[in-house]
Amino acid sequence: MTEHTQQATGNEQSRYDRGWDKLKTIDGQAGERVIASLQDIAPDLGRYVIEYAFGDIYSRPTLDSRQRQLVTLATLTTQGGCEAQLHVHVNASLNVGLTTAEIVEAIMHCSPYTGFPRVLNAMTVAKQVFQERGLLPLV
Amino acid sequence: MTEHTQQATGNEQSRYDRGWDKLKTIDGQAGERVIASLQDIAPDLGRYVIEYAFGDIYSRPTLDSRQRQLVTLATLTTQGGCEAQLHVHVNASLNVGLTTAEIVEAIMHCSPYTGFPRVLNAMTVAKQVFQERGLLPLV
Amino acid sequence: MTEHTQQATGNEQSRYDRGWDKLKTIDGQAGERVIASLQDIAPDLGRYVIEYAFGDIYSRPTLDSRQRQLVTLATLTTQGGCEAQLHVHVNASLNVGLTTAEIVEAIMHCSPYTGFPRVLNAMTVAKQVFQERGLLPLV
Amino acid sequence: MTEHTQQATGNEQSRYDRGWDKLKTIDGQAGERVIASLQDIAPDLGRYVIEYAFGDIYSRPTLDSRQRQLVTLATLTTQGGCEAQLHVHVNASLNVGLTTAEIVEAIMHCSPYTGFPRVLNAMTVAKQVFQERGLLPLV
Amino acid sequence: MTEHTQQATGNEQSRYDRGWDKLKTIDGQAGERVIASLQDIAPDLGRYVIEYAFGDIYSRPTLDSRQRQLVTLATLTTQGGCEAQLHVHVNASLNVGLTTAEIVEAIMHCSPYTGFPRVLNAMTVAKQVFQERGLLPLV
Amino acid sequence: MTEHTQQATGNEQSRYDRGWDKLKTIDGQAGERVIASLQDIAPDLGRYVIEYAFGDIYSRPTLDSRQRQLVTLATLTTQGGCEAQLHVHVNASLNVGLTTAEIVEAIMHCSPYTGFPRVLNAMTVAKQVFQERGLLPLV
Repeated sequence: MTEHTQQATGNEQSRYDRGWDKLKTIDGQAGERVIASLQDIAPDLGRYVIEYAFGDIYSRPTLDSRQRQLVTLATLTTQGGCEAQLHVHVNASLNVGLTTAEIVEAIMHCSPYTGFPRVLNAMTVAKQVFQERGLLPLV
Repeated sequence: MTEHTQQATGNEQSRYDRGWDKLKTIDGQAGERVIASLQDIAPDLGRYVIEYAFGDIYSRPTLDSRQRQLVTLATLTTQGGCEAQLHVHVNASLNVGLTTAEIVEAIMHCSPYTGFPRVLNAMTVAKQVFQERGLLPLV
Repeated sequence: MTEHTQQATGNEQSRYDRGWDKLKTIDGQAGERVIASLQDIAPDLGRYVIEYAFGDIYSRPTLDSRQRQLVTLATLTTQGGCEAQLHVHVNASLNVGLTTAEIVEAIMHCSPYTGFPRVLNAMTVAKQVFQERGLLPLV
Repeated sequence: MTEHTQQATGNEQSRYDRGWDKLKTIDGQAGERVIASLQDIAPDLGRYVIEYAFGDIYSRPTLDSRQRQLVTLATLTTQGGCEAQLHVHVNASLNVGLTTAEIVEAIMHCSPYTGFPRVLNAMTVAKQVFQERGLLPLV
Repeated sequence: MTEHTQQATGNEQSRYDRGWDKLKTIDGQAGERVIASLQDIAPDLGRYVIEYAFGDIYSRPTLDSRQRQLVTLATLTTQGGCEAQLHVHVNASLNVGLTTAEIVEAIMHCSPYTGFPRVLNAMTVAKQVFQERGLLPLV
Repeated sequence: MTEHTQQATGNEQSRYDRGWDKLKTIDGQAGERVIASLQDIAPDLGRYVIEYAFGDIYSRPTLDSRQRQLVTLATLTTQGGCEAQLHVHVNASLNVGLTTAEIVEAIMHCSPYTGFPRVLNAMTVAKQVFQERGLLPLV
């Protein structure tokens, strides 16, 4: 453990705690595993994901959890090469109440903007998650 | 003119008409200008944007217009180099009823995923659109 | 099933049929497997690939099939993260008559534009396809 | 000036000369201006463009100049943010004998792979070049 | 324990203050202008840039300021479409003591990885900054 | 075999020899395996990697080997989809004397610029290399 991670008090602690609660609510055990995988190499990176991505951004008002997952699915689909993160966030999308049809539709909506290959890659991840959760066939 | 552009009847006509209506509703005159700009070089490309992006994708059920613009803002912010399209779609987002705060928030939500530079570039476009429509300052 | 998928008559049917014929001619069984894999999650996405990518774009005049595969190899190599699609289209390139040397050359030509890593990744896919078809060594 | 730039003899000189001839043939004065613009900041970068891109890659057999420009148009369209280079290479495409229709078609062919925004951006560049050379309207 | 994590609200205030000091030291007035431009649309985004990018990341030990700018030049060159941010960080690189030759070299080193177009675009930005600061010609 | 590969004399031979020595010093056996894997499909591509990437770029003065690896880690992390190349270059970074902490820090420094997913993907590669070399846990 680096010296950075040892103790955070006051507001910074609350960012961390708020973020950790958010991460567990949204990403579930898959999110916890990402953080755990960083402990022996870059624990501060895990802390930044918790504090910045979840304690700051996901904790903001204005967009609800389902709207945030629509945005997240689109940004990950478009980047490409983020299949591991998409796996976490297709699960997260289900966790916060998006339907399988909405997840499929959000990915498909990216096709005129980012082309079929990235959309097909994301759909392959969605299919895998839906299979793991016994949600197929959809149609 | 290729043979494809000559006559579209039946369903293909309805795709075109449905897409054109959608495009005008969502993107307004900015969308019409994109199509017009293609007339002397690649009119079929304009037709495909109308038919596929708007007649097929935007006309689908499951996600409403505001949800689709959240996804669109995220995919365009993440791609980078799509400032012209973002300008059209920040306007489109307002046209379908997203608030300025929701637009800002959708762009900001991409920051843990795609980094600050692409988010700052998208926010610069949003700021320009809001200024053009007399919506600044937000806060 | 959405209302769009129900019946396609007239021109829209011909787009689908024309696209399906093209896809089978160009991509062969690998293309059919991509479409089949979407049946239980997003059959409309498969339909759009058939109709738009193959029924509209690949069915256009001006460039012949070999020229189109040169363009396809370049766009997929450059995007990165599209190894699955490159596997289909290296096969497609052979199917339409590009030689192994032309395929290698098209990928290599991208190196001053997109750098060695993406080119090496694409070449790894080409090597795998050539091995599967008993075409190695080239030199 | 680094030691590398000082003297190139034998084969290395021939790479440079061969590349410089290719660059002038293909890219014309626009290519020469790119090289000239680097003289007071990074002349070696200009030399590498000449030697590697043109002396090595563009001088290879197997694909002719028109095929290489099809690949080049696709890789630049797909990358995004390369409008300056596209301007050079739409001109280059005309210089080596691609027709305006073929250039438009190559850019359009990328749309199922990389989406409409990058394709629209590339088409805007093509339109500008065609206007500058008095080639519009095409249709 | 580094100074970062010690106490907030303190600590959160100290992240902001530490980040603001860093941003002013590294990016100078150009960085301040970026933050100022966000005040009427997304001031929280400016705060996150200060807190996360500068208060957290740039304030870490292990790499010194010149090493961090080498990494920053490479990530911005490679992303593409980040000319505005590159302009800030070519200036920042000079501010922390990188020489013009080192800046040019870092950008050029990306060429085998990301290709010539992104490298040429970054070099154009470097040239502009060097001209603005009266540092040309280099050679 | 093309005519280019046949004989390289004088300076071109020295580029090749200089590059091959550099590649072996920096990338070690992993680099040699990349070149070897190209022998039966695109040996010229291997030669260009040796000559341009290592004989030209890595052999330049101004930045030392550790600085070059910082730049390389950043460009590969940012591109995404280059896990194979990152595996080679995390090893290379250790080979030229960067510490595990510096490698982790360089990857982490990209997070405000390119977002967490690409940084997490790169950190996964670094973790794998460190494990293979018995260097974990770091902290």
